[in-house]
Amino acid sequence: MRTQRRLTSVSMASIILRSLCAMCFITVCRADENTDTVNTERNAEESHRQDSTDLLIFTLLLTLTILTIWLFKHRRFRFLHETGLAMIYGLLVGVILRFGVHLPQDLNVTSSCAMNSSPAVLLVNVSGRFYEYSLKGEVRDDKGEDVPNAEMLRKVTFDPEVFFNILLPPIIFHAGYSLKRRHFFRNLGSILSYAFVGTMISCFVTGLVMYGCVMFMKAIGQLGGDFFFTDCLFFGAIVSATDPVTVLAIFNDLKVDVDLYALMFGESVLNDAVAIVLSSSIGAYQPEGDNQHTFDGSALLKSLGVFLAIFSGSFAMGAATGVMTALVTKFTKLRDFPLLETALFFLMSWSTFLLAEACGFIGVVAVLFCGIAQAHYTYNNLSDESKTRTKQLFELLDFLAENFIFSYMGLTLFSFQHHVFNPTFIIGAFLAIFLGRAANIYPLSFLLNLGRKNKIASNFQSVMMFAGLRGAMAFALSIRDTATYARQMMFSTTLLIVFFTVWVCGGGTTPMLSLMKIRVGVDTDQENAATASDGMAQISTRPESAWPFRLWYTFDHNYLKPILTHSGPPLTTTLPACCGPIARCLTSSQAYENTGWLQDEDTELILNDGGGSMYGDMTVNTDARGVPTTSTSQAGLYSLAGTSDDPLDRELAFGGTRLVLPTDEPHDPLMSFPPPPPSPPLSDPLRHRV
Amino acid sequence: MRTQRRLTSVSMASIILRSLCAMCFITVCRADENTDTVNTERNAEESHRQDSTDLLIFTLLLTLTILTIWLFKHRRFRFLHETGLAMIYGLLVGVILRFGVHLPQDLNVTSSCAMNSSPAVLLVNVSGRFYEYSLKGEVRDDKGEDVPNAEMLRKVTFDPEVFFNILLPPIIFHAGYSLKRRHFFRNLGSILSYAFVGTMISCFVTGLVMYGCVMFMKAIGQLGGDFFFTDCLFFGAIVSATDPVTVLAIFNDLKVDVDLYALMFGESVLNDAVAIVLSSSIGAYQPEGDNQHTFDGSALLKSLGVFLAIFSGSFAMGAATGVMTALVTKFTKLRDFPLLETALFFLMSWSTFLLAEACGFIGVVAVLFCGIAQAHYTYNNLSDESKTRTKQLFELLDFLAENFIFSYMGLTLFSFQHHVFNPTFIIGAFLAIFLGRAANIYPLSFLLNLGRKNKIASNFQSVMMFAGLRGAMAFALSIRDTATYARQMMFSTTLLIVFFTVWVCGGGTTPMLSLMKIRVGVDTDQENAATASDGMAQISTRPESAWPFRLWYTFDHNYLKPILTHSGPPLTTTLPACCGPIARCLTSSQAYENTGWLQDEDTELILNDGGGSMYGDMTVNTDARGVPTTSTSQAGLYSLAGTSDDPLDRELAFGGTRLVLPTDEPHDPLMSFPPPPPSPPLSDPLRHRV
Repeated sequence: MRTQRRLTSVSMASIILRSLCAMCFITVCRADENTDTVNTERNAEESHRQDSTDLLIFTLLLTLTILTIWLFKHRRFRFLHETGLAMIYGLLVGVILRFGVHLPQDLNVTSSCAMNSSPAVLLVNVSGRFYEYSLKGEVRDDKGEDVPNAEMLRKVTFDPEVFFNILLPPIIFHAGYSLKRRHFFRNLGSILSYAFVGTMISCFVTGLVMYGCVMFMKAIGQLGGDFFFTDCLFFGAIVSATDPVTVLAIFNDLKVDVDLYALMFGESVLNDAVAIVLSSSIGAYQPEGDNQHTFDGSALLKSLGVFLAIFSGSFAMGAATGVMTALVTKFTKLRDFPLLETALFFLMSWSTFLLAEACGFIGVVAVLFCGIAQAHYTYNNLSDESKTRTKQLFELLDFLAENFIFSYMGLTLFSFQHHVFNPTFIIGAFLAIFLGRAANIYPLSFLLNLGRKNKIASNFQSVMMFAGLRGAMAFALSIRDTATYARQMMFSTTLLIVFFTVWVCGGGTTPMLSLMKIRVGVDTDQENAATASDGMAQISTRPESAWPFRLWYTFDHNYLKPILTHSGPPLTTTLPACCGPIARCLTSSQAYENTGWLQDEDTELILNDGGGSMYGDMTVNTDARGVPTTSTSQAGLYSLAGTSDDPLDRELAFGGTRLVLPTDEPHDPLMSFPPPPPSPPLSDPLRHRV
Repeated sequence: MRTQRRLTSVSMASIILRSLCAMCFITVCRADENTDTVNTERNAEESHRQDSTDLLIFTLLLTLTILTIWLFKHRRFRFLHETGLAMIYGLLVGVILRFGVHLPQDLNVTSSCAMNSSPAVLLVNVSGRFYEYSLKGEVRDDKGEDVPNAEMLRKVTFDPEVFFNILLPPIIFHAGYSLKRRHFFRNLGSILSYAFVGTMISCFVTGLVMYGCVMFMKAIGQLGGDFFFTDCLFFGAIVSATDPVTVLAIFNDLKVDVDLYALMFGESVLNDAVAIVLSSSIGAYQPEGDNQHTFDGSALLKSLGVFLAIFSGSFAMGAATGVMTALVTKFTKLRDFPLLETALFFLMSWSTFLLAEACGFIGVVAVLFCGIAQAHYTYNNLSDESKTRTKQLFELLDFLAENFIFSYMGLTLFSFQHHVFNPTFIIGAFLAIFLGRAANIYPLSFLLNLGRKNKIASNFQSVMMFAGLRGAMAFALSIRDTATYARQMMFSTTLLIVFFTVWVCGGGTTPMLSLMKIRVGVDTDQENAATASDGMAQISTRPESAWPFRLWYTFDHNYLKPILTHSGPPLTTTLPACCGPIARCLTSSQAYENTGWLQDEDTELILNDGGGSMYGDMTVNTDARGVPTTSTSQAGLYSLAGTSDDPLDRELAFGGTRLVLPTDEPHDPLMSFPPPPPSPPLSDPLRHRV
């Protein structure tokens, strides 16, 4: 089959182009026109026109959403986030299309061919002329009847893979690229625990509860089709992916505790990756003899193996392209040409996705780790203009893709033709996600608190529990396959869960925070100053002191950063003497200057996190910075830098900043980007920020 | 037919999504898998993987191009432009694919269906299971044989419409958006003459010469198929579209005379629009009785009517969305949120394209005028950050799309399966485009010089003649339809013309400039200073003093600008007293402050162009600025502004700046954007510009 698609380059190129857009039909017929050809041409033109109209409607919908968002921000309405708004507009359009537009049923579908196979490309002989048709997919109806019907058609015309190939990558990449927050790394262990262990727990608990629910439905005769245990687990995986969008916008706006923010953001970014890999490895769970109904140890092991292989493969791909980009930007002087640099950055990041998909891994996951690697290494090599450009570009793509998905969600609620709303299942699902989330957060927090010096307070846990919204990823995973009864029911239920959590939990976050007495209005700068004044006592209570993380930090700081970026310490001092020539070759001239500078932002994290005694970097450095007091003074230095107007520092502190309402508080440290070019009429640049 | 495609919203949404990407096949089959379903699923997966690989190859090709461009810029190689480079890489890949990769011939094509019509969607019954196929187009072979063959398939898999729907719009929009150059407007009349009259002359001359050539070929028996007069005219339209890319980069780099630059840039941008509309109106030339071989007066009139209708319709659409965007950005305070503003700008600009396509006009043309309107009005309403963002976003899109097209061109030379290279035709075509270009430039320049005070010198004319490269638009128009023998020959010939002009004429521009003794290294600022010191005498020699342009400037300055932007003079002073309430409502508070300011950039054009006595704005203004001396001093003021560091002013002067080599001259006024946020290590921001 592989060879089948390996056509010549024309065809290859055409696939590339079709991949980008299939909006257009070829009108290869001309010259000796007869009525038939003219008709074909006219059909193609007509359908192109229709496509344009449809896309136009969607574009206008997004425009309307933007204008309303502005109005809400302008009037300081906080109860509804932009994504919730996009959903409402989508809903309205869905209702209009569903009930307002009546369609003729005579769709031009013919089914007079009977064949023994379903080739990817079909040539049809129409009175001596040949037309090419390409396979879109199988058409199936649960009722098993009236298949060659228009109804069918509407279902299959649907192409949910677009979410995975077009819309999710920029969203996930942006999440990774903006993950570079000071407090993310110092909570890394907890975040990884929540994301990996927690998501798996949540998946299994939800799956088990749903299996019970399905058994109950079967008993009372409410189940209209097959629903296997693997389906339940699949559902568990789908709804375990939490979405950071709404809650984090509010967190940012209200300036909640930075550790809580880091935990929430880190978890929701990483668990998207875990959930998508989980759902594909559950798909790989096929017990011997094609019987999915029994438990099979070897199949489970196989699933686990698939999970690990896919995850590590995707991770490796993402990290590899990130490292590649870092090396290219380090060793060329591309930074003299920001346009070229930005284009290269964009293409390399996109190629991560393609590379992973081409190798059979999961592109979206690879893109996440690529984003993190780009932020951690490449970002430091970029010119100032490219830093701004890349940030702004991906911010825009993320914004558009996200609002598109959410308004599409609203639309689907009414326009999808095969909804299966089963009250028992829905109630069961809401119960299951509640229990699943609880089984994730509370036990894990208890265990983590045993090891953490800076405990995760119980009100933090409750907020994490409450604010686990489901969003784009859950939707994309559930819409991917809506062929069977089970999947349709899952899809409809997931849609309701997303709506409920975005509107109710999203809207209820502010009251929840005050109910839980979470400290809001925390100025990071002030907190840093406090940290500095508390001195070592405070610093040593920093959570992540587990040795794997220390080891990683040391390795990263002494070897990876100097190899991949211009930051110090120079490799000539950190590598053993035998590697001298290689070290000299890899170390950029700036690294020597930077040794004492510490202009590398992540060093700050390390210093703030644990002081000189905690991470090995102090002892390896060649200059005389091993004394604890020096370390303390440095922590103070950085805290001072935090209160300064240095945009880079502010950006670091608020790298994950999303669209938030401008507030009236005198201090507004929300900065996602360096300030715009100075211009006289712009009196307060912070006010003009999103 | 229209109603046929008017499906429910699911289908609509699906079309939207498919429009964005058809890379992905649905795998709707699951659960009760048998071998067949598994096969289908595997096929889909395999083809998705293959698609990803193909796209990856292309992405890497572009990455390689970028790196080589950087190397060339870094080493100051000027003989080859980036687009020429992209073509070479494309060629290499094409050669490898053509001769290096051998493909199996057993493509999975079945043609066992015989039907009476060719529906857009086909359901195929494969042993009781239904598969959906969608129409891709008709398959035809010139030899009229072995139709259901793999060979065919490769041809039709091609979807050239992607150029018109995905790649050209950002290129053309960017051209329009960066057209805002000081010297463009003062040569507007000449530019319009070259673009409209000149392109039509060129089209007809080329068509006639080609008709002669084709007749000759027929006589000596070299013609292998039909080639009508309309085909010749169509070819004339295709190759009359000149491309600004390469030449203007060199012009910018060498700082040639600004008027020459404005003439070249303006002409090549506008004649793209004229050529595309011409080619579609030639398509509409169908004499009575479907006989295209004779001359028919009414058909010609119809064609003319189509030309005017399409052009004015597309123009109106573009201008309308531009004006809409200007109004929205003026009357909302969206500028407080640059992300929202940029997203709105992007969506509105894109919707121009969709709107025009949906109404049956030409999206690419609408997008051009939308770009111009956005630059002229909306740009002034944007926040400083959005100005930079939108410029940079479209610059990036333009860069990527352009290099993609040019590398694709290189690829096509070897990979396209139906090349018809006829030496007679090719020689004829080169002769024809030479004659066509000459018939455009020289007579028109002569006529224009009769009216112009600032004559277009004969060396300018020769450079315009020589530098009429053919590029993306000619390629996209010729690849759009390659079904007949005539079209295939046109396509192959156009490809050669593009290669030749980009490499030879593009590479020879620098020698040509010195041969023609064109003033290079002209510093616009210095020229302005000279203008200012020469005073009124110099000012009054400005070319465009024809009354339609003066009328337009007055109208634009007094009514349109105040309505659509925040600039003065306030409408309350320019509108008659009876319109008082409306005027007050439409005038923004800033307009009152701006009356004396003249911060509106285009006023500068007007003042520089003709002084106060030439355009009506001085007499209509209410303040005491009617005195000529004041006007002169203002011109001086602006010239001083030109030498200042005001980025906006510099940008104005070099709005059309493309990628150019950084030069070593002490003065480098090339600035496409305001400088980046100030940062200590960036000692000379101009050096870091592209």
